[in-house]
Amino acid sequence: MNERNISDFSEGERVVGHFLVQSKQLLTTRAGKPYLNLTLQDKTGRISGKVWDGAAEIHDTFKGNDAIKIDGTVELYNRELQLTIRRLRPSEPDEVDLSDFVARSSHDIDEMFLDIRSLVESIENPHLKALLDAFFEDEDFTEAFKTSSAARNIHHVCIGGLLEHTLSTARLCEYLTTHYEDLDGDLLITMAILHDIGKVKELEITPAINYTEVGNLLGHIVIGIQMVGEKINRLPDFPPQLRTLVEHMILSHHGQSDWGSPRPPMFLEAEVLHRADDMDVKVDIIKRALAEDRDPDSPWTTYHRALERVLYKKPTYETDVSPEESAG
Amino acid sequence: MNERNISDFSEGERVVGHFLVQSKQLLTTRAGKPYLNLTLQDKTGRISGKVWDGAAEIHDTFKGNDAIKIDGTVELYNRELQLTIRRLRPSEPDEVDLSDFVARSSHDIDEMFLDIRSLVESIENPHLKALLDAFFEDEDFTEAFKTSSAARNIHHVCIGGLLEHTLSTARLCEYLTTHYEDLDGDLLITMAILHDIGKVKELEITPAINYTEVGNLLGHIVIGIQMVGEKINRLPDFPPQLRTLVEHMILSHHGQSDWGSPRPPMFLEAEVLHRADDMDVKVDIIKRALAEDRDPDSPWTTYHRALERVLYKKPTYETDVSPEESAG
Amino acid sequence: MNERNISDFSEGERVVGHFLVQSKQLLTTRAGKPYLNLTLQDKTGRISGKVWDGAAEIHDTFKGNDAIKIDGTVELYNRELQLTIRRLRPSEPDEVDLSDFVARSSHDIDEMFLDIRSLVESIENPHLKALLDAFFEDEDFTEAFKTSSAARNIHHVCIGGLLEHTLSTARLCEYLTTHYEDLDGDLLITMAILHDIGKVKELEITPAINYTEVGNLLGHIVIGIQMVGEKINRLPDFPPQLRTLVEHMILSHHGQSDWGSPRPPMFLEAEVLHRADDMDVKVDIIKRALAEDRDPDSPWTTYHRALERVLYKKPTYETDVSPEESAG
Amino acid sequence: MNERNISDFSEGERVVGHFLVQSKQLLTTRAGKPYLNLTLQDKTGRISGKVWDGAAEIHDTFKGNDAIKIDGTVELYNRELQLTIRRLRPSEPDEVDLSDFVARSSHDIDEMFLDIRSLVESIENPHLKALLDAFFEDEDFTEAFKTSSAARNIHHVCIGGLLEHTLSTARLCEYLTTHYEDLDGDLLITMAILHDIGKVKELEITPAINYTEVGNLLGHIVIGIQMVGEKINRLPDFPPQLRTLVEHMILSHHGQSDWGSPRPPMFLEAEVLHRADDMDVKVDIIKRALAEDRDPDSPWTTYHRALERVLYKKPTYETDVSPEESAG
Amino acid sequence: MNERNISDFSEGERVVGHFLVQSKQLLTTRAGKPYLNLTLQDKTGRISGKVWDGAAEIHDTFKGNDAIKIDGTVELYNRELQLTIRRLRPSEPDEVDLSDFVARSSHDIDEMFLDIRSLVESIENPHLKALLDAFFEDEDFTEAFKTSSAARNIHHVCIGGLLEHTLSTARLCEYLTTHYEDLDGDLLITMAILHDIGKVKELEITPAINYTEVGNLLGHIVIGIQMVGEKINRLPDFPPQLRTLVEHMILSHHGQSDWGSPRPPMFLEAEVLHRADDMDVKVDIIKRALAEDRDPDSPWTTYHRALERVLYKKPTYETDVSPEESAG
Amino acid sequence: MNERNISDFSEGERVVGHFLVQSKQLLTTRAGKPYLNLTLQDKTGRISGKVWDGAAEIHDTFKGNDAIKIDGTVELYNRELQLTIRRLRPSEPDEVDLSDFVARSSHDIDEMFLDIRSLVESIENPHLKALLDAFFEDEDFTEAFKTSSAARNIHHVCIGGLLEHTLSTARLCEYLTTHYEDLDGDLLITMAILHDIGKVKELEITPAINYTEVGNLLGHIVIGIQMVGEKINRLPDFPPQLRTLVEHMILSHHGQSDWGSPRPPMFLEAEVLHRADDMDVKVDIIKRALAEDRDPDSPWTTYHRALERVLYKKPTYETDVSPEESAG
Repeated sequence: MNERNISDFSEGERVVGHFLVQSKQLLTTRAGKPYLNLTLQDKTGRISGKVWDGAAEIHDTFKGNDAIKIDGTVELYNRELQLTIRRLRPSEPDEVDLSDFVARSSHDIDEMFLDIRSLVESIENPHLKALLDAFFEDEDFTEAFKTSSAARNIHHVCIGGLLEHTLSTARLCEYLTTHYEDLDGDLLITMAILHDIGKVKELEITPAINYTEVGNLLGHIVIGIQMVGEKINRLPDFPPQLRTLVEHMILSHHGQSDWGSPRPPMFLEAEVLHRADDMDVKVDIIKRALAEDRDPDSPWTTYHRALERVLYKKPTYETDVSPEESAG
Repeated sequence: MNERNISDFSEGERVVGHFLVQSKQLLTTRAGKPYLNLTLQDKTGRISGKVWDGAAEIHDTFKGNDAIKIDGTVELYNRELQLTIRRLRPSEPDEVDLSDFVARSSHDIDEMFLDIRSLVESIENPHLKALLDAFFEDEDFTEAFKTSSAARNIHHVCIGGLLEHTLSTARLCEYLTTHYEDLDGDLLITMAILHDIGKVKELEITPAINYTEVGNLLGHIVIGIQMVGEKINRLPDFPPQLRTLVEHMILSHHGQSDWGSPRPPMFLEAEVLHRADDMDVKVDIIKRALAEDRDPDSPWTTYHRALERVLYKKPTYETDVSPEESAG
Repeated sequence: MNERNISDFSEGERVVGHFLVQSKQLLTTRAGKPYLNLTLQDKTGRISGKVWDGAAEIHDTFKGNDAIKIDGTVELYNRELQLTIRRLRPSEPDEVDLSDFVARSSHDIDEMFLDIRSLVESIENPHLKALLDAFFEDEDFTEAFKTSSAARNIHHVCIGGLLEHTLSTARLCEYLTTHYEDLDGDLLITMAILHDIGKVKELEITPAINYTEVGNLLGHIVIGIQMVGEKINRLPDFPPQLRTLVEHMILSHHGQSDWGSPRPPMFLEAEVLHRADDMDVKVDIIKRALAEDRDPDSPWTTYHRALERVLYKKPTYETDVSPEESAG
Repeated sequence: MNERNISDFSEGERVVGHFLVQSKQLLTTRAGKPYLNLTLQDKTGRISGKVWDGAAEIHDTFKGNDAIKIDGTVELYNRELQLTIRRLRPSEPDEVDLSDFVARSSHDIDEMFLDIRSLVESIENPHLKALLDAFFEDEDFTEAFKTSSAARNIHHVCIGGLLEHTLSTARLCEYLTTHYEDLDGDLLITMAILHDIGKVKELEITPAINYTEVGNLLGHIVIGIQMVGEKINRLPDFPPQLRTLVEHMILSHHGQSDWGSPRPPMFLEAEVLHRADDMDVKVDIIKRALAEDRDPDSPWTTYHRALERVLYKKPTYETDVSPEESAG
Repeated sequence: MNERNISDFSEGERVVGHFLVQSKQLLTTRAGKPYLNLTLQDKTGRISGKVWDGAAEIHDTFKGNDAIKIDGTVELYNRELQLTIRRLRPSEPDEVDLSDFVARSSHDIDEMFLDIRSLVESIENPHLKALLDAFFEDEDFTEAFKTSSAARNIHHVCIGGLLEHTLSTARLCEYLTTHYEDLDGDLLITMAILHDIGKVKELEITPAINYTEVGNLLGHIVIGIQMVGEKINRLPDFPPQLRTLVEHMILSHHGQSDWGSPRPPMFLEAEVLHRADDMDVKVDIIKRALAEDRDPDSPWTTYHRALERVLYKKPTYETDVSPEESAG
Repeated sequence: MNERNISDFSEGERVVGHFLVQSKQLLTTRAGKPYLNLTLQDKTGRISGKVWDGAAEIHDTFKGNDAIKIDGTVELYNRELQLTIRRLRPSEPDEVDLSDFVARSSHDIDEMFLDIRSLVESIENPHLKALLDAFFEDEDFTEAFKTSSAARNIHHVCIGGLLEHTLSTARLCEYLTTHYEDLDGDLLITMAILHDIGKVKELEITPAINYTEVGNLLGHIVIGIQMVGEKINRLPDFPPQLRTLVEHMILSHHGQSDWGSPRPPMFLEAEVLHRADDMDVKVDIIKRALAEDRDPDSPWTTYHRALERVLYKKPTYETDVSPEESAG
């Protein structure tokens, strides 16, 4: 859409392009002159922007979550880049695709989707296969499933994030089926694929990622059980007891009531799904926290509220040296 | 069914009748002679029974949860009554109705049901009225709803217990609609009636009251949401947003995640329903604990695990005496 | 006191009147010129005010919690109203009544008090009646009781708030006496009236509502028990056991140790009082949170720390439409 | 009272004496013959006793908590001593003093009381001294204070236990006044003496140690505040603020709401009192657990519910050996 | 050792062999005759045994945890098998190997050990390889490591249990190294092998599995850190920072302070190790709970205290039926 | 180092001296002119400083934690003092000693150290004495031990803080050895001296007090156990069981797992050490909170996060008045 991404900006360059208005404030200098303080976003990052002239006239022509076209210059201010904006106007609907302003999974969405489809094809239990087919032959669902984020923040927060997390969890479960005896692999892999489907209705990308009303009032666990129920209602031969297993695995996949599951996992596949899901989430949270770290001088990240700890930026240099060299 | 209830037995009387076998053990005297130690139950209580002769031959002719016909004598042993059983045989199916061995609500079930129906008739919101009608015109549902217990133990544990608790909660909500401004009375009363309907599938009376498999794996909250969803699916005009309110009120009626609700009540009617339900449950637990107390010498009940406290058997005599009398 | 309330201000109007100084800061423009940033309050709300001229001279002539008389103009600044103040001086003691700057219950205090007196008259137990009379014939007490707030913030925060909460709780208990059998109505209603009396000494209105020293060090529960004890000491016929019940109901009315009651409610009336009190508090908190919401564009309030949740601004429009209309 | 204490019994000896009936059960041999199974207690311990003859006739002539006079023989049965009782009758009131059946503090009660009195004499603050005098010149109080137990079980469970714990806590506080600067020693020592006085009404020795009704409904913290309040009411010059400090120190001495104090200690003396009290309690609990241990073969005690751990029976032999010896 | 294992006993057969005395009680018949009630154990299970004759003489000739040789008959009593023992004597030390009375891993210990050695060989980091070699070239360690149980009860409770759990965890970590980018596979796999080594000193098999004194006082986490420290002290080139990573991964592998780790995992490999370890433990607990279930009539296991839930014995029959068949 | 300490500054005085840069921000006036906003620190406190001229040129010549030499004037701004800095340059290494910018214990470090040495000399157990000697004859250790802080913030935060806390705890334990019978005084006092030694490696003063990497990853408890282990390894006669007691007392001195001790204190000396340590910490926290209080108008401090409460600034005047005077 734009020639240059925010992550590529350098001091002194002129920028002309469309950006999402992440936030907007009308402030006043002490001399009484109003100015606009904006935060602009594209899919690669965010930058602060100032409009010093005509702020009072402009500031009601657009609002947060709108896209605007700007003409400005990148300047260095107190060690950070910012944009001094000379001109701006709201973008026209046909000029921008709001989803272009949101981060996308670093993995190719279509490839990930094909990988999920391969896993679906590997299921031998006819009922579970039929259930998966009911979802994956439903284009409304697959379209939403491919683009949804896995969370509002915290983990896998991007277009394709749900797909990325689902694929990783399902593959981990596929391995576990070989690692542990006695696991019903078809049930485990099927539910790894379906455990978070309620998120396609729990979250919306507008382009900010947010909870929907139904998402906030019911949560993706209940929504997921409803979605599965609707599909199974159209599969008359689906065994009722298997349906209950399927519903229980969605219900219990957060592990305990404190974390949103009113029932703990009550059989082995449910427990394994919970733990595979949780490991995948925690690994992503930690990687994200390290990637977003901005202070190269400290070996520690800032305190992470969800993890309830600081993380150590483990050095790697010392561990790949042979004893001889380090002794030398 | 029997001429005499267990609660009416007195020392020395001969008893002939059918009783439910609550538990059964084959024991042996030191002299090597086997005897049977039974606990028998009718809807008024339980009594211990011993079979001293022919125990080895008899003990495989029936099992726990069966009904048996006995002929025996009530004896006093160490301050408690017990039955010395001379003869017994399994009851024939046409001799007994297993539900006769279970406690029933002390209130008339049909009258309570009529009272609920009157509350249903008072609902003016056409969608909520239609939803209630969908349930109350469904005979399978009303049959189950009228007989179900409200819990396996703890509170309203009897045939008709669910009905009794539902009616009490709904009436309390009806009052609260007048007590507090700004409450949507139709929504509150409707959901007071429907909040626990999942219990008709969560529990079964066989005649012991127990969780069903689906009850244990999903719980009455999720089952209730599914039941409501099935009815609303057949009401094409039901507003989607109202549906979400209805589902949320079932989901949140336990108040917090620790108590089984993954979402807290997020609007006023949901909060009020939760508190009305909880008050009704706690009042019944306390009354039950006092009624089941067996030690008249102590002003305290035994420790109640669910309440996490002992209860005080508050005296009443002193408070209805006039100052003159007590001074006299 | 003033001709216009803060809640009625509109852009451009001139304001002359007395206001409470809620907070005061001396700041400086970049050009080195000092200015005053005030928050002013009357009983209907708050507004920001700026003094651009003579700030250095004025700012030590009054302090927070003082009243000042101002002459200024209402201006619109960044979507919010603020006062540009040309002149101000401290109010004279005889010009203002500090309590006029504090919110008052929306219900008439004298009417509420009469309603409480009626409830007192309905008590038949002579000891409890004597105890209530001892309080309600004590003018120091009734004066304080009629004006006290029920809390520093959170719920029923206003002059008359304690009275409003007490009346609502007592009436709810009056209803519950008819709803549940076996309740000692005299004891329950008496204690509903007395449960929070310690708040008349726990809180003070100066005119900010704050904890007193004794309030913070002992809390209204212990203070309430002391106040009841002093009255009972002058009622020689008061049965000691009834006194203990009375004291226990105050002690346990917060329900559990985490919430400030070292003893849980140990008999039915104590439990019911706790729950009636708690329901009344929670209903008021939710109504307040909805009333104070300032963002009409979102269906959600901001996160409420005491409730530990966001609240949903439930729409009402859809639920009062008949099926025919919505289908049309 | 008796010639021999239970702790001195040896196999084969004949015992004639009075004992407290701690528990009593009427059982039957398989041959149908009833016998009595008793647990008898004196202040040194407990022993099991059997009555094989005439049990049915005897067993209603006395009950638990009564004293009986017995004539029997000590026998060894499965590694434990027990009494075979040939004859028994209820003790006459003038034959026994029930308090003789309860453990007494191993320290001399009168000496401990004198030590407390010395501490009282050391207080220089006239108000606090007057408050202490009000208690220690009240014979009803001193009589109860000298004999009361400090708890029903767990710690300092004996006649004189409250005195022992109070003296130890007060002396520890006396030391801390020298250890830390800035402590108001008069206030700290006074409150160390008074912090648990509510226990004289919370517990009763009948001769089993149990909670009184008022003890269970209010607890010793509230009772203590009431007792202090009654004394201060008769000291017209007592400064109100000092009274609040005194009451707060009783209120907060359990440290946090979970442990029964609705207020945490809010100034230094209150915190120090809480910690001195808690240390004294925990030291006694641990000593008691070690003293009551009955399994010399294990280095571990059984799990202690109040401490939530097992204790290690630390060996001492190895630590008093010099390096030379252990090396030898 | 014996011809027949306890798990193979059938009614009526004569048994001559050595068994471990799990518990022993001297009881008396009502006729006053003493008898012995034993629980005997071999590595396949437990059985109750009675000695009716000569019990008083025999019962001091052996104690719990001893082995005895018995001659007896298997009888059916109240639906369970038990041994009536005619003769018994303590086993001679050369007749039995106490470890034969304890369960062994169902996997071959030498094969598992070879698998661990292969993993060790795959480590390329020379420091970590040197650390592992220091352990695996230490025969005292390898001997203990091969036979140790992984816990006293709960999970992997058998000879070889530690090896089995270690191998499973290490292989899971090996997979995760391929599943997630950015993991230091050498560090992760090394620590998967070493994370629980402290258990070789924390537990002892005597042959009952129990905590050692040092195990109870310090725990396997601290012991493991000490063991690793001793080895590293002899590797002069070992990088100090890598040593800290190694120690931290042992310290944090229980995940949080409540579960025994004073530090949470602070880098990615530590988090992944914690979760791999925890998954392996939980899978074994669930499998064990299902395997030990004794009630085929219920779809539920009994309540599992460590898991804090009941488990569902998930049926499998219905899920392997094709839609056509189930429809037919 | 400087002529005047920050705590002595008064309005209008000129200041020339070296200060530590606690924080530094480059800001811009509305007119576009950059200025520096600094926080400067010496061992007596902190002050804000502004550089209005040449900020852009200067601001990269030094960074946080550097010392600078400044020339400026103290001004009063909005009731607080601040420095207007005319000139500044980085301090030369030989001009300043960074430790001079950090607070020091108010007690003499050498005297405290001598007091600790006296306690060491009083130990009679030869093994414990040898262990203490191993530390106190190790100059690297004693140097670090004398200067270390006891914490990063919260308590005893200063050079010599560890020594001060250790001495106070050890003396309290010395007293407790006389107060309670049955305590092994040598073990208790030895471990009071050694319980926190891990802090010499957990914290560093640079001159800000911060966790080291190993401190954050392992914590002072594990480090302390390692340090003790290294010394004991060189004492071949040290009894292994005594070593375990020593290690356990370090491990358990935080009392419970939530507070960082994976094992609770399992014998009396360990429990007493935990409580003596905790009392000393809490007394210091409370004194610090009162000393740092800045609002003389309120009887309450601000909320203290670690204590989870506000503190009452207890008045003393009223309590030292005799009854006669106060009555007068």
